[in-house]
Amino acid sequence: MKHLEPCPRYERAIEVLGKKWNCLIIRSMLSAPRRFSDISNYVEGLSDRLLSQRLQELEQSGIVERRVYDSKPVMVEYSLTEKGLGFRQVVEAIQRWADQWEANPMEEALARKYQPEGT
Amino acid sequence: MKHLEPCPRYERAIEVLGKKWNCLIIRSMLSAPRRFSDISNYVEGLSDRLLSQRLQELEQSGIVERRVYDSKPVMVEYSLTEKGLGFRQVVEAIQRWADQWEANPMEEALARKYQPEGT
Repeated sequence: MKHLEPCPRYERAIEVLGKKWNCLIIRSMLSAPRRFSDISNYVEGLSDRLLSQRLQELEQSGIVERRVYDSKPVMVEYSLTEKGLGFRQVVEAIQRWADQWEANPMEEALARKYQPEGT
Repeated sequence: MKHLEPCPRYERAIEVLGKKWNCLIIRSMLSAPRRFSDISNYVEGLSDRLLSQRLQELEQSGIVERRVYDSKPVMVEYSLTEKGLGFRQVVEAIQRWADQWEANPMEEALARKYQPEGT
């Protein structure tokens, strides 16, 4: 792979992945279809209005599929299409990088809290 | 991997990768150190002011290293640190996804141009 040649395909993929929240929304659906509230609870800080917009965009890009079950009450589930599931390798590569290189903010805070004074 | 558990590390990684232009800037340095103008030429649409800001942020995050050579004229090179090179798997996973799922806009335009009328 030559990394100094522009690649419009790569840039389009980045447009999807780079859009705020998308990487988390996609991650939430990797192992199973989810209801709106599942995703909303998982992605902290994301408003329902914006989640709804993102899901619609992802549906239009053929990445997410919305399925309505004719039950009472009606149930709506979101899942990744084959194209969406193709992001698994990307999500997992990001996770591996994160596990290796990013400190966990919770652990950092604990370490600070329990660090003997004067060290 | 459980995909419905929040992961602060993953979210931090996304903050870096999701920031506009970063994925392209990182990609440009994967195979060799680059000069400012190399990166600027490669990432179309990115102003020099913003590239300079992004490189500084990436340097502060320990992802990019800036090296000044005491030559005449002075040469400045940017390269990825070990942490930055860790993004190779991410970039390559995005590229594979893009090659499989995204149409090349150039090819699409050509296909439209050469499509017989009335089809």
